[in-house]
Amino acid sequence: MYKAYKNSQLSNERRWIIISRNIRGRSKKTGLPPGTVVYVGRRKPADIRIRSISFDEKHIEEREVREIEEAFPLKGQTEITWINVDGLQKVEVIEKVGQQFGIHPLVLEDIANTGQRPKIEDFSSYIFAVLKMIQYKEEDKETKVEQISIILGSNWVVSFQENEGDVFDPIRERLGSDKGRIRKMGADYLAYSLIDAVVDNYFAVLEKVGEKIEEIEDEIVANPSPQTLQAIHDLKRQMILLRKSVWPLREVISRLEKWESNLINESTNIFLRDLYDHTIQVIDAIETFRDMLSGMMDIYISSVSNKMNEVMKVLTIIATIFLPLTLVAGIYGMNFRVMPELEWGWGYPFALLVMLAVGIVMLFYFKKRKWL
Amino acid sequence: MYKAYKNSQLSNERRWIIISRNIRGRSKKTGLPPGTVVYVGRRKPADIRIRSISFDEKHIEEREVREIEEAFPLKGQTEITWINVDGLQKVEVIEKVGQQFGIHPLVLEDIANTGQRPKIEDFSSYIFAVLKMIQYKEEDKETKVEQISIILGSNWVVSFQENEGDVFDPIRERLGSDKGRIRKMGADYLAYSLIDAVVDNYFAVLEKVGEKIEEIEDEIVANPSPQTLQAIHDLKRQMILLRKSVWPLREVISRLEKWESNLINESTNIFLRDLYDHTIQVIDAIETFRDMLSGMMDIYISSVSNKMNEVMKVLTIIATIFLPLTLVAGIYGMNFRVMPELEWGWGYPFALLVMLAVGIVMLFYFKKRKWL
Amino acid sequence: MYKAYKNSQLSNERRWIIISRNIRGRSKKTGLPPGTVVYVGRRKPADIRIRSISFDEKHIEEREVREIEEAFPLKGQTEITWINVDGLQKVEVIEKVGQQFGIHPLVLEDIANTGQRPKIEDFSSYIFAVLKMIQYKEEDKETKVEQISIILGSNWVVSFQENEGDVFDPIRERLGSDKGRIRKMGADYLAYSLIDAVVDNYFAVLEKVGEKIEEIEDEIVANPSPQTLQAIHDLKRQMILLRKSVWPLREVISRLEKWESNLINESTNIFLRDLYDHTIQVIDAIETFRDMLSGMMDIYISSVSNKMNEVMKVLTIIATIFLPLTLVAGIYGMNFRVMPELEWGWGYPFALLVMLAVGIVMLFYFKKRKWL
Amino acid sequence: MYKAYKNSQLSNERRWIIISRNIRGRSKKTGLPPGTVVYVGRRKPADIRIRSISFDEKHIEEREVREIEEAFPLKGQTEITWINVDGLQKVEVIEKVGQQFGIHPLVLEDIANTGQRPKIEDFSSYIFAVLKMIQYKEEDKETKVEQISIILGSNWVVSFQENEGDVFDPIRERLGSDKGRIRKMGADYLAYSLIDAVVDNYFAVLEKVGEKIEEIEDEIVANPSPQTLQAIHDLKRQMILLRKSVWPLREVISRLEKWESNLINESTNIFLRDLYDHTIQVIDAIETFRDMLSGMMDIYISSVSNKMNEVMKVLTIIATIFLPLTLVAGIYGMNFRVMPELEWGWGYPFALLVMLAVGIVMLFYFKKRKWL
Amino acid sequence: MYKAYKNSQLSNERRWIIISRNIRGRSKKTGLPPGTVVYVGRRKPADIRIRSISFDEKHIEEREVREIEEAFPLKGQTEITWINVDGLQKVEVIEKVGQQFGIHPLVLEDIANTGQRPKIEDFSSYIFAVLKMIQYKEEDKETKVEQISIILGSNWVVSFQENEGDVFDPIRERLGSDKGRIRKMGADYLAYSLIDAVVDNYFAVLEKVGEKIEEIEDEIVANPSPQTLQAIHDLKRQMILLRKSVWPLREVISRLEKWESNLINESTNIFLRDLYDHTIQVIDAIETFRDMLSGMMDIYISSVSNKMNEVMKVLTIIATIFLPLTLVAGIYGMNFRVMPELEWGWGYPFALLVMLAVGIVMLFYFKKRKWL
Repeated sequence: MYKAYKNSQLSNERRWIIISRNIRGRSKKTGLPPGTVVYVGRRKPADIRIRSISFDEKHIEEREVREIEEAFPLKGQTEITWINVDGLQKVEVIEKVGQQFGIHPLVLEDIANTGQRPKIEDFSSYIFAVLKMIQYKEEDKETKVEQISIILGSNWVVSFQENEGDVFDPIRERLGSDKGRIRKMGADYLAYSLIDAVVDNYFAVLEKVGEKIEEIEDEIVANPSPQTLQAIHDLKRQMILLRKSVWPLREVISRLEKWESNLINESTNIFLRDLYDHTIQVIDAIETFRDMLSGMMDIYISSVSNKMNEVMKVLTIIATIFLPLTLVAGIYGMNFRVMPELEWGWGYPFALLVMLAVGIVMLFYFKKRKWL
Repeated sequence: MYKAYKNSQLSNERRWIIISRNIRGRSKKTGLPPGTVVYVGRRKPADIRIRSISFDEKHIEEREVREIEEAFPLKGQTEITWINVDGLQKVEVIEKVGQQFGIHPLVLEDIANTGQRPKIEDFSSYIFAVLKMIQYKEEDKETKVEQISIILGSNWVVSFQENEGDVFDPIRERLGSDKGRIRKMGADYLAYSLIDAVVDNYFAVLEKVGEKIEEIEDEIVANPSPQTLQAIHDLKRQMILLRKSVWPLREVISRLEKWESNLINESTNIFLRDLYDHTIQVIDAIETFRDMLSGMMDIYISSVSNKMNEVMKVLTIIATIFLPLTLVAGIYGMNFRVMPELEWGWGYPFALLVMLAVGIVMLFYFKKRKWL
Repeated sequence: MYKAYKNSQLSNERRWIIISRNIRGRSKKTGLPPGTVVYVGRRKPADIRIRSISFDEKHIEEREVREIEEAFPLKGQTEITWINVDGLQKVEVIEKVGQQFGIHPLVLEDIANTGQRPKIEDFSSYIFAVLKMIQYKEEDKETKVEQISIILGSNWVVSFQENEGDVFDPIRERLGSDKGRIRKMGADYLAYSLIDAVVDNYFAVLEKVGEKIEEIEDEIVANPSPQTLQAIHDLKRQMILLRKSVWPLREVISRLEKWESNLINESTNIFLRDLYDHTIQVIDAIETFRDMLSGMMDIYISSVSNKMNEVMKVLTIIATIFLPLTLVAGIYGMNFRVMPELEWGWGYPFALLVMLAVGIVMLFYFKKRKWL
Repeated sequence: MYKAYKNSQLSNERRWIIISRNIRGRSKKTGLPPGTVVYVGRRKPADIRIRSISFDEKHIEEREVREIEEAFPLKGQTEITWINVDGLQKVEVIEKVGQQFGIHPLVLEDIANTGQRPKIEDFSSYIFAVLKMIQYKEEDKETKVEQISIILGSNWVVSFQENEGDVFDPIRERLGSDKGRIRKMGADYLAYSLIDAVVDNYFAVLEKVGEKIEEIEDEIVANPSPQTLQAIHDLKRQMILLRKSVWPLREVISRLEKWESNLINESTNIFLRDLYDHTIQVIDAIETFRDMLSGMMDIYISSVSNKMNEVMKVLTIIATIFLPLTLVAGIYGMNFRVMPELEWGWGYPFALLVMLAVGIVMLFYFKKRKWL
Repeated sequence: MYKAYKNSQLSNERRWIIISRNIRGRSKKTGLPPGTVVYVGRRKPADIRIRSISFDEKHIEEREVREIEEAFPLKGQTEITWINVDGLQKVEVIEKVGQQFGIHPLVLEDIANTGQRPKIEDFSSYIFAVLKMIQYKEEDKETKVEQISIILGSNWVVSFQENEGDVFDPIRERLGSDKGRIRKMGADYLAYSLIDAVVDNYFAVLEKVGEKIEEIEDEIVANPSPQTLQAIHDLKRQMILLRKSVWPLREVISRLEKWESNLINESTNIFLRDLYDHTIQVIDAIETFRDMLSGMMDIYISSVSNKMNEVMKVLTIIATIFLPLTLVAGIYGMNFRVMPELEWGWGYPFALLVMLAVGIVMLFYFKKRKWL
C-alpha cells in the first residue's frame, strides 16, 4: 500500500527537479538562446482548454474559446478579463498571450518550463507569479505537483495551469453568483483570490498527511515493521516537497505586501496580509509534522531495538536453563565403572528432581532480575 | 497513565493544525469569499457568556448580559468598557461587535477561526491580538489549547475566549478591589494585563512539565521501559506545541513595543517591555526543557543498550562455563572399549573435580575481565 | 560521586526555571498587580547584610549598616557611593532603595524575583543590570546560580546579591588600597568592575568543568561505565545552564557599548569592549566544551558497542570451538552395535586427538580473522 | 563500480582543497610576494588553445591564434571581442592579457591559481568572475571540477578555462548563426551567456546524481550492502562539492544584479535575475538531494539492524528448539540402573514423540510471537 | 601513534582555554585592576629575541637588539620601522613599547595574555590585531597554537610572537631582496603581509589534516579499529580548534576592509580583499573537512555494526549446524532397551550420513539466505 503511494510520489518529485531540466539541457545544447519558449514537462495528449471571464460589478460573461485570440479583451474595455489556460503544451498560445499583453520572453519561458520555483516578479506594467499546486489524488494515491502561473495586468488576469483542475472553480462560482466583494474589487483582488485558492489547497494536503501520521502512530505502537519505517520516510519526503513549494511563497507574498505597485490597490493589501498569515500557518504545520515524524523515527528505532532485546532475553533464558540441565544429564551418562549414584534405586528420579530444582531456581533468578 | 495523557494531548494539537482547516476548506469549496465569519472549532453545547465591565478611576460597574448589544458602551461615554465573550459558536455576536466598533471582516473571521497563529495587527483605530492559551487540566490529564482574541480600541477592550475560563479572574478582582494602577490607567493597560495573564499561564504549564521531567528522570535511572520513552516523546511533543504558541508571541510583543500607535500610552510601554522579558523567559525555559529531553532520550537509549549488554554477558558466561563442562561429560560418556580413566576407582570424583576446576577458572577469568 | 554532584546541580537549575515561577503564579492569582515587589527564591534564615562605601579620589569610608537608610548618600554629596546588599528576603529594603533613588516598581520587582534573565535596561536617570553569577562550591560539590542586580546612577551604585558572597572582595580591596584607576574614575567604572568580576567568575567555573572533562576523558578510555555517561550528561546540562546565563550577557554588553547614556563616560567604553571580549571568550569556551562533550558521547557509545562486540566474539569463539567437540564426544557416545572405532585399542586417544585438532584449527581460523 | 567512481571523485575534491595550496605554500616560502602569477593545478602536457571571436550585429570573425597578442582587439574598434583561453599552464599568456587590458596582478594570480572560490569583483573598468564548472564524465566515471575565469570589459570579454571544454560551444554556435539576441546586445550579455552556460551544466550533474539516487534506492530495498552505504556516502560527498561550488555563486549573482556598474546595461539585468533563479533552483535541488540521502542513510542503518534482528531470531529459534530436545536425549542417555522408561518396549518411539511434541509446541509459540 | 599525537594536541587546546584563565583568575583575586600587564602562558626558559628592520624604498637596515629601546625609531624619521619581538615573558618589554607608542594598557594586557580571541581594534592612532598561528610540528607530532599580536602605527609596525618562529622569514627576505612592492608601499602593507603569512600557514595545517583524513579513510575500509575512531575524533577536535582560530578572523578582516582608517591606504584595500578571500577558503576547507569527518564517523559506526552482524552470523551458523547433529548423536546415545537402529549393521554409518545430510542442507539454506 505505502509502496505504491511512495513510488508515484517519488516520480513526481523527481520530475520537478530533474526531468524538466533534462529536456531543457538538451535544447540548450542545440544552441537555443534564453527566452525561447519551450514546453518542459510531461506532454499530455489532452487538448488545452481556454476559458475567459469578463466582468464588472453589473455584468459577467463567461466563455470557453478554441483560439486564444478570441479570449483577448477588446481595446479600451473597462471590464476585468480573466483568461484561464489549462495545459501548456501549445507554446504558441503562451507566445500569443505574450504578444497581446507585452510580456517579456523570459516570463513566457518560465510559464512553459514547469521546473520553476515559486516567485513573484514586478514588471511595472504587469506582475508575474509562479506557484506550485500540490494535490493528493485519493484514487491513485498520488501526490501531484502542478505549476500555476498568474499574470496580473491593469484590468486583466491570465492564469496558466499544467492540467485542467478544479481549484479555481469556487472563484468562478463566486464571480457568477456575485457573492462577496470579488466583483466589486479590481483585477488585483481576483489575482489574490487565485493565489489564496492555491494556498488553501495546501491545507487539504496537510490534512491527508495528518491522517497518515495518525495511522502510522498506531502502527508503531501495535506492530512496527520495516513498512512502517518506509511510510515514515515517505511522509518525511513529502514534507520536503511541500516545504520546497511553500517556503519561497512566504517571502514572495511578504514582498508583494511591501511593493508599491500601482497595480495593487490599498484595499487589497489587508487581504495579502491575511494570505501571508495562511502561508505561515502552512509552514508552521509542515515544521510541526517534520518534528513529529522525527520523533516517530526515534520511537521506531527504539522499539526495534527493544524487540531485539526481548529476543536476546528469550535466548539467554533458554540457554541458561537448559545448559545446566544438559550437563547433569551428561554427567550421569558418563561410563565410569564406579558411580555410586547410578546404583541407587532412586537415583533416576533424584536426578530428575535436581534438574527440576535447577530449572526453578533459574526461573526465580530471572524473575528477580525482571527478565520475565 | 502516560498513554491517556498522551492521547488527549495529541488530539488537541492535531485539532489546532488540521480539523479547523478541514471545515474551512469545505466552506471555501462552497464558494464563500474571504471575510465570511464562520465558527471553526469544536461546537460546544454550552451557552456563550457575555460579561461587561465599565470603569473609571472612581466608579466600576460589572454586568452579565444576555445580548451583546446590552454590553456596548454608550456614545460619548468616557469610562473604559471591557467586554468579555466566552464561547465563539454564535457568529452573530462576533458580527455585531464588528458592526459596533467598525472591525474589518477579516479580523472577525480570524476571531471565529480558532486555527490562528498568535499575532498582533494595528488597524489604526483599533489593535487586534490573537493569543493561544495553554492549560493543563489535572483532572482529565489534558492539555487544552484555546484561542484568545483581544481587540483594543480608544476606550474599550473586547476579548473573546473559546471556553469559559478563569484566567482573567485575577484581573476582574483587581479591577473590583481597586488595587494597583489598573483603574488609573487606560484601556491599553487593561489589554496589556489580559495578555500578561495569558503569558503567566505558560509558567504554570512549564511547572507541570518540569515536574513530569523530574519523575521521568528518576524512572530512567531506576527502571527504564518503553513507557518511559513514550513519556519523553510526549513531553517533547508538548514542547513543540508550546513553542508554536509562544514563539510568534515574542516577535509580536517586541513589535508592539516599537509601534507608535496613539492607542498605546508612553507609560504602558515599560510594562510591554516587562511582558517581552516574560515571553523570552518562557521561550528560554522551553528551549532548556527541549535540551533536557534530548539528553534524557540519549540516556534512555544508552541505558537500554547497556541492559542488552548485560543480558549478552550473562548468556556468554553461562555458555562459556557449561559448554566445556558438557564436553568433559560427553568425553567420559563415550563408549570406547579402552578408556583407562573409566576403570579408575576415583575416576568419577576426579571428573567432577575437573569440571569444578574448569568452572572456577572460567569464573576467575570473567572476574578479571570485569564481567561479573 | 557524580551522583551527588548532579542532584544538587539539577535542583539549582530547576529552581531557577520553575520554583520561582510557582510562587509568582500563586501570588498573581491572588490579584497582585505587576510591579508588586515579592521575594521569589529560597527564603534563607540568615540576616541580610548591607555594606556601604563612599569614596572619591582622596577619601574612602567603608561602613556596615543595619538599616538601609543609613547607607544612603547625603544630598549634594559629590563622592561616589556604593551600597551592596547581600540577601533579598527583606523586600522593604529593596522598596526603600526604590524610593530613595526613584527606581521604577517593575525594576524593584525584577530585583526581588530571582527568576530573571540577564539584561540591562536604560532608564535615563539610572541603568539597571541583572546578571547571573555561577559558583562551583568544592566543599558541597554544588553549582550555585545566584542573581546579581546592579543599579548605576549618576554618582552611586547599588548592588544586590542573593547570598553573601566574596566575588566583590577584590574590588573592595582595590578601592581600599587605591590601586589602579578605580578611585579615579566614576560610578560607571565601578559598575563595570562589578560586572567584570562576575564575568571573571565564569572562567573559574569553566576551569572546573575543563578538569572534569579531562577526568572523564581518561575514564572513557580506561573503563567506560554508565556512570561515565551520567557524568558527561551532567556536564552537558551544566553547559546549558552556563550558556543560558552568559549568552544574553553578550548582547547586553554589546548594547551597553553602543548606548549614548550620559551615565557612561567615554573613557569607560574601552573597558566595556574588553568586557565584551571576555564574554565572547566565555561563550567560545562553552561552545568548545559542548562540542567536546558531544564527541565524548559518541566515543562512549562507540566504546560500549565495541565492548558488546568483544563479548559477542568470546561467545562465538567458545560456541564454535566446543560445539564440534561435543558432537565428536556425542558420536562416540552412541550405542550402535557395530562401531569399529570403539573397538580399536587407540580409539580413545585418537578421538581426543581429533578434538584437539578441531579446536586448534578453529583457533587458527579465528586468529586469521583477527578475532583473537 | 562505485569504488572506482569514488576514488576519482575524491582525488578531485581533494585536489581543489589541498594540492593547489600545497604548491602555493611552497612558492610563498621562497619569498614570492602576493600578485605573482603562478600556475597552480595539474600541469597538463597538452598545448593551450586560444580562440578569438570579434562580432557586431552585422559581421562576425572567428579565429584560432597561436600567440595571445594576435587575439587582442585593435584600438578604437567598436566590435565586441571574445577571447577564450583553454589551459592555464602558460602564465605569460595570462600576464600579457593583464598588460593589454590593465588587469590588477591579484586578479591574474587568481586566474592562474585554480583553488579559488566562486566570486565576482568589480574593478570599475572591468568585472572579474571566477566560477567552478563541474562535469561528470561517463566514460571514466569521474567528476571534474574546473575553474573558469571571466573578465568583462567595455567591449571585450576574456574567458579562461583549465581544460579545453565544450561548454561554450552552444554560445559560439548562437553567435555564428545569429539566432537570438546575443549579437545585438553588448559584451555584458555575452558574459552573462557564459555564466549561464556554466550554471546550466550543474543541472546535468544533478540529473546524473538523481539517477544514481534512484539506483541506490532500489538497492537499499532489495539488497543493502556496505557498498550501498559507501555509494550513499560518495553521493553525499559529491553534494558537499557541488554545494561548495554553487552556494557562493548565489550571493555573487545577487550582488551583480544590484551593482550599478556602467559595464552592465539595464536590459541585461532581467537576464541576471533569471540566472539568479537558476542558481537558487540548483541549490534547492542540492538541498533536496541532501535530505533524501540523509533519509536513505537512516533507512540503510535501520535495515541493517533489521537483518541483525532476523539473524538473532533464527539463532534463538534453533537454540530454543534443539536445547530441550538434546536434554531429553541426554536424560535417556543416563546410565542409572533403575530407569523404567528404558525397559519399555515403546520407550524409544515414545521418547522421539516427546521430542517431536516439544519441537512443535515451540514452533507454535514462535508463530504466536510472530517470530516466524 | 595517534595516541601520542592526540595527547599533545589536547593539552594545547586546553591550555588555550583553561590554563591561561587559571592564572589570570588567581591574579585577579589578589586585587589587580584591569589593564595590568601580566604574562599568561607557559613561561619558557629561552630568552626573548628582538629584531628591528627600518626601510624605505632605497635603504634597509636590519638589526637584532638586546634592549627594546634600541629598536625604537628616531623622532621625525620617515622610514618604516618593523619591530618583531619573539617571546612574551618579559612584560617590561611590552610596557616599554606601550610607553613609546602610546598604547592603551588594555591592549598591552591583551598582548601578554595568550588566551585572546582573534580580533582587530582601531584606536585611531594605531590599529591592534590579535591572531592565532597554528603550526603542526612533524617531529613531535604536536599542533601548536601561538598568539601573534600586531600593532600598526603611522610608519611603524610592532609584532609579538609567543615563540621564535619562522613564519615571517619570507617577508624578511622579500624586504631584503627588494622583490615585489613591499618596500614601495607603507606600513599598512607590511602589516597586511604579516597577517597574510599567518593565514597562509593555515593551508599547511589543512594539508596535513587532509593527508591524515586520507590515511584514516583507507584504514576504515581495510581494518576499522577503536584507534581509527579515536583518530577521527582527534581530527574533529583539531577542526574545532582551527575553526575557533579562523572564524573570528573572517569578520575581523571584513571589518578592516570597511574601516576608513587613515592608517590604511586605498591601494592596500584590494590586498585586504584578497586576504579575506583566503580566510573564506580556509573556513570552507574546514567546513568540508568537518563534513567529511562526520561522514567517516557514520561509516565507521556502520562498519563496526556490520562486523558485529558477521560475528552473529558465524555464531548462528555454527549453532544451527551443530545443535541438530548433537541431537542426532544424543538420540543414538540413549539407553532404551529396544532401539532397532542400534542393532543394524550399517546403523552407525547411516547415522553419520544423516548428520552429514543435515549439515549440508543447513549450509545450502544459509547459502540461499546469502549468509555465506
